[in-house]
Amino acid sequence: MIDPICPKFEQAATLLGKKWVGLIIHQLLIGPKRFNELETEIKISGKMLSDRLKDLEQQGIVKRNVYNEIPVRIEYELTEKGKSLNPIMNELTTWAERWFE
Amino acid sequence: MIDPICPKFEQAATLLGKKWVGLIIHQLLIGPKRFNELETEIKISGKMLSDRLKDLEQQGIVKRNVYNEIPVRIEYELTEKGKSLNPIMNELTTWAERWFE
Repeated sequence: MIDPICPKFEQAATLLGKKWVGLIIHQLLIGPKRFNELETEIKISGKMLSDRLKDLEQQGIVKRNVYNEIPVRIEYELTEKGKSLNPIMNELTTWAERWFE
Repeated sequence: MIDPICPKFEQAATLLGKKWVGLIIHQLLIGPKRFNELETEIKISGKMLSDRLKDLEQQGIVKRNVYNEIPVRIEYELTEKGKSLNPIMNELTTWAERWFE
């Protein structure tokens, strides 16, 4: 029997199913982060991180805060839409704890 | 401040963060499926689906049931480890409903 996939679910799963996105969101749920902090924590290339952050900004999940200090300070932060991913991450943490060594 | 990522979470997020995996698990949560059903529902290439299913089998998330009928019948089914992903998928469905048109 063919069970069609709900388009909304498909969009969400495709977005969150991109490599690195889960880890980026997980880290930003801790709090706003600088680019190099994310780069270090996730062990991701600068190019890939930049692409993913732009994508997440366009999707309204991440916002980029620029602070006019010298030198200028830039931080990435989850929007409300991004922060509402928290329950998914909590369930994923629970699953990971149970099934991975 | 650098917040290291828990290795267990990283393994789980990396596994589930592979393209198509979320959709494959979502469909198998409905029930056991044949290869061509998954192919049709997810609109994924046979090669990619075969690779992902082998990967998920090795991870103990999917099992392959072979029924000695004529012709032989093969179905893919979630293991207990796979079925325990259900809460994550439910949260993802809730999030998708709220944020996508």
